[in-house]
Amino acid sequence: MIIIPGGVTAPKGFLASGVKAGIKKSGKKDLALICSEVPAVAAGAFTANVFKASPVKVSLKHITHKTHQAVIVNSGNANCANGRAGDRDALSMARFAAETLALKREAVLVASTGIIGRYLPIEKIRKAVPALIGALSEDGGASFAEAIMTTDTKKKEIAVKVKLGGSVVAIGGACKGVGMIYPEIKAAGHATMLCFITTDAAVSKKMLGAALDEAVADSFNMVSVDGDMSTNDMCLVLANGMAGNRRIAAKNRDYAAFASALKFVATELAKKMARDGEGATKFIEIKVTGAKTAADAKDIARKVSTSTLLKCAVFGGDPNWGRVVAAAGASGVAIDPGTVDIYLGGVKVLSNGMTVRGYDLKKAEALFKKDAIDIKVGLKSGKHEATAWTCDLSHKYVEINSEYST
Amino acid sequence: MIIIPGGVTAPKGFLASGVKAGIKKSGKKDLALICSEVPAVAAGAFTANVFKASPVKVSLKHITHKTHQAVIVNSGNANCANGRAGDRDALSMARFAAETLALKREAVLVASTGIIGRYLPIEKIRKAVPALIGALSEDGGASFAEAIMTTDTKKKEIAVKVKLGGSVVAIGGACKGVGMIYPEIKAAGHATMLCFITTDAAVSKKMLGAALDEAVADSFNMVSVDGDMSTNDMCLVLANGMAGNRRIAAKNRDYAAFASALKFVATELAKKMARDGEGATKFIEIKVTGAKTAADAKDIARKVSTSTLLKCAVFGGDPNWGRVVAAAGASGVAIDPGTVDIYLGGVKVLSNGMTVRGYDLKKAEALFKKDAIDIKVGLKSGKHEATAWTCDLSHKYVEINSEYST
Repeated sequence: MIIIPGGVTAPKGFLASGVKAGIKKSGKKDLALICSEVPAVAAGAFTANVFKASPVKVSLKHITHKTHQAVIVNSGNANCANGRAGDRDALSMARFAAETLALKREAVLVASTGIIGRYLPIEKIRKAVPALIGALSEDGGASFAEAIMTTDTKKKEIAVKVKLGGSVVAIGGACKGVGMIYPEIKAAGHATMLCFITTDAAVSKKMLGAALDEAVADSFNMVSVDGDMSTNDMCLVLANGMAGNRRIAAKNRDYAAFASALKFVATELAKKMARDGEGATKFIEIKVTGAKTAADAKDIARKVSTSTLLKCAVFGGDPNWGRVVAAAGASGVAIDPGTVDIYLGGVKVLSNGMTVRGYDLKKAEALFKKDAIDIKVGLKSGKHEATAWTCDLSHKYVEINSEYST
Repeated sequence: MIIIPGGVTAPKGFLASGVKAGIKKSGKKDLALICSEVPAVAAGAFTANVFKASPVKVSLKHITHKTHQAVIVNSGNANCANGRAGDRDALSMARFAAETLALKREAVLVASTGIIGRYLPIEKIRKAVPALIGALSEDGGASFAEAIMTTDTKKKEIAVKVKLGGSVVAIGGACKGVGMIYPEIKAAGHATMLCFITTDAAVSKKMLGAALDEAVADSFNMVSVDGDMSTNDMCLVLANGMAGNRRIAAKNRDYAAFASALKFVATELAKKMARDGEGATKFIEIKVTGAKTAADAKDIARKVSTSTLLKCAVFGGDPNWGRVVAAAGASGVAIDPGTVDIYLGGVKVLSNGMTVRGYDLKKAEALFKKDAIDIKVGLKSGKHEATAWTCDLSHKYVEINSEYST
């Protein structure tokens, strides 16, 4: 597998665009489109929040369709808590795209992001759709990635190529999301952020869904900015088969290579979100090892990653690792405190549950001043591990989120 | 029931004191003591964190003793993650007090608060105990309340008098805690913050425990500052019987009056913690009504109270109530979105899951500029309700917590 330039238009047969529809007060791009030249199969993962935004409801319905060819996305308005009017508006977004592209409405998926509790300016979107479709291009991936941004400071794209037998398959992705970020898998469904992945691989809808599930569990579902789960989280993947590989229809070797590449793409996008987390000055990786079960490892890693106190300490460059102890102990996992080790980078600060006397405080302080912080929690009670990502909590985060809607 | 001046020394037969032992770098008071003139029965509630600090472990053992007469508390050091050395130090704190007061060691309860992962300067404490005991006084409640503070900006005390039959009983309390505040009841135990309640009521140890359980569930366990559960949370209540009321030994009318007064004291102390939450500029009360079960109501209220995004919005005076929608929907409770109403003060912004068209935005904005914010979530699916308290998330919070240990 190699990383290649680009994002959602890196795989063969995918076009994309982004335009200004006037939804955002800032006047920035706020309407985006991905289109495959041929019908593609799609899989999706959606927020577990009970207040599902209208575009989530529409996409949950449409995703059961056999094939898809387009995804339309607006930023600046979440179209959430708008009742039937919101549902109608989300459906209209799909319809506008479908009519101009001569597709069935069910072949179009819809996503929205922005403020909750404001009605969607659907007329502005209707008027902008012809320009949006006119702008579709093989080089449109970056424009798409830009138009889905809200408080993001950077476009988030990645693409890779991977060999499957004699064929080369590409996977590209773009995502947004740097606040209200705490996706969570539920028994009843999945939660992710706004993320769009395209691939020219030939793969069955069922295997695509399986690969997406695997990818999401260890990537998006392990990232947190503020612990707030959104009403609009969505991850969609479209596979149009144009790479001409032998179609993946079972969990064989090709599936394994494809799933592994998809997970890489998802993980890189997840990390990009944490790195660009609202107000972030530092990236934090928390690795838990030696857990009894995979679920235990994940629960502890995620709990530590949402510690407001730890995030503030990292912002201040203060190696106050006792906050890791408190968070790990509050995870609900039956940890044996007497076997726990904690490392800040290479510095062991806790050994078998006891503060290491005379540990290298200067080295720990130096680590906490770096722009990527690496924390390890070792449990020595099993073989499972998990990694979670987050960012520090800065003055800028407070600034951004105390001024968002007004 | 009437509110009276004072705190832990308001009930008959309780003395208290607070002195400077040199644990805090600031040189402020950091060692505190409560002492009953006669043996008292005690009940306690302790953190559910698996990393229990040494004083929690010692007090969990001592609380099984029949009677108690003293509580010794230090601030500035949590004595947590210090292994057997920490356990020995916590036990020494009890022993120092017991020896000088001529009590059994088990009659003394111990609590600590401060930084995690530093060994306790036990010699400083040993040297300060004689002065601590010498300072014991009927007017020492305020000094006690001051000496248990860490990042608190205000002493937190309250006292009430209540009639039980022909007798008048007093209950007094003091607490500290404005950060790492997210207590939680677990099946295996309880979690609270550092809180000490005294009463001259005559009550059996069993009924005292029952009344404390009831009080804690609706007070401390409904308050949050940052969602971080501490390793040191503890709530102790001592009853010395000196009011001479007919001893409460069953859940009769006197029990009900006493339990109700105890809950009032606990609730007022919990609210004081939220009001003085680290960096707080505003107090937030979240009331959930019409839930199917009491647990549902609590889960939703608590989830909304820990929304970082909502807390930032309140800090900025921004009525971005969509964040209440998202948080309520992420609580894990199977809410029917179509029946949910949300009120900001008197302003209905969401009606049956739909944004109210043309709601009074100016009035909502004015509410969000006040120093106490009142949010209601109505579910219309049952009769249960719950109230949670928190505070806003300000620049000052980030400042305090990025500089704590260094």
